[in-house]
Parts: sequence; C-alpha cells; structure tokens
Amino acid sequence: MKMTLTASNITAPTRFVEVPNQRYAYRRFGNGSGPPLLCLQHFTGTLDNWDPAVTDPLASGREVILFDNAGIGRSTGVVPETIAEMATHALAFLDGLGIQSCDVLGFSLGGMVAQQMVLDRPAVFRRMILAGTAPRGGEDIMHLDKPSLSRYFTNPALQGYAILQKIFFAPSLSSQSAGEAFTGRLMLRTEDRDEISGPDVARAQLASFREWEQFTGVRFADLKRIGQPTLVVNGVQDEMIAVRNSYWLAEHLPNAMLLIYPDAGHGSLFQWHESFHHHAAEFLASNSRFAPY
Amino acid sequence: MKMTLTASNITAPTRFVEVPNQRYAYRRFGNGSGPPLLCLQHFTGTLDNWDPAVTDPLASGREVILFDNAGIGRSTGVVPETIAEMATHALAFLDGLGIQSCDVLGFSLGGMVAQQMVLDRPAVFRRMILAGTAPRGGEDIMHLDKPSLSRYFTNPALQGYAILQKIFFAPSLSSQSAGEAFTGRLMLRTEDRDEISGPDVARAQLASFREWEQFTGVRFADLKRIGQPTLVVNGVQDEMIAVRNSYWLAEHLPNAMLLIYPDAGHGSLFQWHESFHHHAAEFLASNSRFAPY
Repeated sequence: MKMTLTASNITAPTRFVEVPNQRYAYRRFGNGSGPPLLCLQHFTGTLDNWDPAVTDPLASGREVILFDNAGIGRSTGVVPETIAEMATHALAFLDGLGIQSCDVLGFSLGGMVAQQMVLDRPAVFRRMILAGTAPRGGEDIMHLDKPSLSRYFTNPALQGYAILQKIFFAPSLSSQSAGEAFTGRLMLRTEDRDEISGPDVARAQLASFREWEQFTGVRFADLKRIGQPTLVVNGVQDEMIAVRNSYWLAEHLPNAMLLIYPDAGHGSLFQWHESFHHHAAEFLASNSRFAPY
Repeated sequence: MKMTLTASNITAPTRFVEVPNQRYAYRRFGNGSGPPLLCLQHFTGTLDNWDPAVTDPLASGREVILFDNAGIGRSTGVVPETIAEMATHALAFLDGLGIQSCDVLGFSLGGMVAQQMVLDRPAVFRRMILAGTAPRGGEDIMHLDKPSLSRYFTNPALQGYAILQKIFFAPSLSSQSAGEAFTGRLMLRTEDRDEISGPDVARAQLASFREWEQFTGVRFADLKRIGQPTLVVNGVQDEMIAVRNSYWLAEHLPNAMLLIYPDAGHGSLFQWHESFHHHAAEFLASNSRFAPY
C-alpha cells in the first residue's frame, strides 16, 4: 500500500489500532501547534464520509483524527444501540492511541457521542465543536420516516450519494448545488476505501437516536456539567436533526457559542466549508476559557 | 467647544443636520475603505449610550455614524409611537447627510428600525447587523412590567446606569462584572453629552414595541423580502427581547447568519465586545452576496 503522507482525507492511509477485544480503523493526518482534533461521524458514515474540504484545512493547524466506531467500516465489533456504548468505544480508541488530551468535532450522531465522552471523561477534552446535533432529550432527531425525509428514501430514482445530497442540504438550487459539490468531493478518494454501511448499521444507530431522545430528571440538566468552550453549528433548515436542538444546546451548555448558517440543512459545515473552517479554526486556536472567539 | 477629531465616541463632537421641519443630532467619526456604518440605538438610548468599546474599533475600518432619532437627545421633534415613523426619520437623516449607500447596525429598538428602513428603501443598504432585536410579530419584546425586569425598576437602590447593568447583562457574576465595565465606559465621555431621556420618550417607544408585536397576514413574511446579508447577534439570556426573536430572524431572513453569545443578556455585544468587533468587522469586510463570512 502506498503510504502517502499528504495531509488529506483523499490520500491518508487507513490505519488500525488494537485494544482488548476490538480493532478500530482510523486515519490521522496533518500537523500544527493545536491539540489533535478527534472527528466523530454521522449516521451510517464511515471514514470516507468526511469531506476533505472540511478535514484538510483543519489539518493544517493540528492533527486530524478520523475514526470508525465499533461495527463501522473496517472496525470490528457490533454497532451499539446506545450513544453511551459508542462513547465508551471512542474513549477506548483514544486510549489505544495514547491520546490524553484533544479537541473534538462531533457531527450529527458524532455530536451526541462527543457530549457523552465529555461527560464521561471531562479531563481529556479541551474544546468541542458540535455540528448538526442534539442534546439528550432533544426532539425530531433522525425520524427518517417523516414525509420530508421519507420522500427521498422511497424514491427509486435516488440512490447512495444522491440521497445524501437531498437529506444533508436544503431544497434550494444553491444548497443542492453545494450538495453536488460535496458528494463529488467524497468520491475523490479512489483507493483504500471503507465498506459502505448496511441496514444493520442503520437499524442499530436509529435505535441509539430513539434512546437519546429519552431523558430522566430535569431536561438538559447534564449539559450544565460541560464547562468546555463549545461551538454549536447548524444549518437553519436541518430536516434530519431540527435546528431547535442546536438552540437547546446553546441555551443549556454554560459556555457555548451558537452559529447558524442560512440556506443550509444538516450538512451546513460541508456547504459553507470555507466559512466553517474559518470559524472552527479561530475557535480552536483560542486558549481562552470562554467560548467566544 | 474643542473639536477633537479622534475616532472615538468619547471625544467625537456632536453635530447637527437640518432637514425640513427637523434638526437631528449625530456624531460621525473614523475612516477606512468600508461603507459608512449607521448605528441605530436602543430604548431611551442617546448618542452617549453607544459603548466606545464597540463603536471605536469599528471606526478603524469605516466611518461610524451615531444618530439621535426625533425627540431623543438634542434632536428636535416628537418621539414617534411606531417603528415605521422612526424609520422615516432615520431615512430623512441619511438624506440630510447625502448618504446614498451604507451598512447598518441596529441594536434592540434600533434593529427594528433598521429592518423597516431596509424594507422601505432597500437600495441604500449593503449589509446589516441586528443585535438583541426582534422581527415584526415577535414576542416578549420589552415587557418591562414582567417580574424578571420590574424587580429592577421598582428597586429604589437601583438608579440610572445601575439599572442598565442589571437589565442588559445576565445575573452571573461574570456578566454583571462586564456590565459594570460597560457602564464605566459610558461615563468616559465627560463633555458635550446628550440629555438623558425622560418618561415621555420611554412611553412613546414602549408604544412602538407594542405596535411592532402586531402583524397582519403571514407571520414574518416581510423578512423574506430582505435579501441583504445580515448578521443576527444576541445573548442567550436576553430578558428584554427574548432570544427566540433572534431565532425567528435567522429562520425567516433568507440570508442571515445567527451568532448567539453565552452567559450574556441583551447587551451581549457590549459584554463580548472584542469578539463582537471581530465578527462584525469580518462580516462587514466581506463583499460576498452571502451572509456567511
């Protein structure tokens, strides 16, 4: 295998780390003075679903670490049906790499795993970016059977990335055009790709969303325990995880900035990747104990 | 009078412009390559209520223009009881100065006037910043009689700027401390100050808020007609104009970024003035037809 060392998710080799009872697939690339940035992926997404327009510029200031959770891509094991178990796997992965301190970017499902990891082991995490995600106890999280989404899944003319373009982007021509560019970028990597997730992955992860919508005690109270500076990002027209979940994150996390993009859906960070990188890089470059940057 | 030309609201001389039936007081200072920035003020606020920590850094990239609407400070006339009439005055003021193109920063009441001005004469405005404000048809706009606010107005121990510190900032020690610094900065200007607004100003402006809460037809439909790139800013704990009004602005303006600050109330731009300036300057420096920066 050609071990290209270019700092890009188009060319970075897939690597593997062994921990007890488990082998995780991952990629790490980039360098700079910032702490490593652990990137946690969306529903059914693999290493190949990370948009190089997002990962690669971030890799110019720090090491970017992409990771397949248990049962995804070429990681062994079974896809958990709870966010809590996914967080346990992701912490085991960090332990396997010997990483004791990092930043985290969690997108969608990955943002829920990020929150749980920070609650479980706060000392590891310096700063957190939560994109297109929801707190425990949120609402309208990945209900793929609702008409605004099911119309795409049940349309036989749409397959694979064509569905992704529909569900990650707003219906406008401008957003759909950005979606087409996004899926084009996902195909730039031609070798050493992950297997695409199958229905078992989807079923287990959907179960984890249903569990995440449940809460006991005071709603959103857990968020008060997360003191890390956080940047919450979303597209105002997110159909997959309604934007009010991002509002709740900003309202209940004590130290979070909220940034909402216009004319964008779930994949706002991919649509507005230049702006997203600009904001994310400035946020991550800050050493303030406060979120505003 | 000493005509100091320093680009600061601490020292800029108050000037006057005559238009038919009206004389407006204003200050203009600063320079740079950007279009002039018209700043529209909050409930009962005068030229002296503009925080130099916000106005002065912005004046390093453009001319900043502060303005007393009719019946405020040393402007002649009667304070209108509708936002529409305030917008008419502000447009007459721009005409009086011969300004045909500018950006606008509207804070609170001023943000409502800014929206109305852009609807009335869209060609004048390039980019818009709306801080701590609400769309027509918004809710929980300046209800000073609700317990969370009236407790300050009815506390005899609180007067003047001490009330402002309470109502513009969150209850936390950190926010109140920022509020104390803010009111300290408002007192740095020692000469050529406006008269403080009296109860007649408050009464008329409160009437304008009640009128602004009304709407006919489809709620928030007017916002769709505002194509200007817009930056919507607020503090997550705004008690004076609830933050959901900022959410509505971002959801219905077709081209708006939303930026919400933590641990902050109505005066988030004064509390986080370094961050606010950073974001506002980058937003205003952009020549993109899109809001993201």
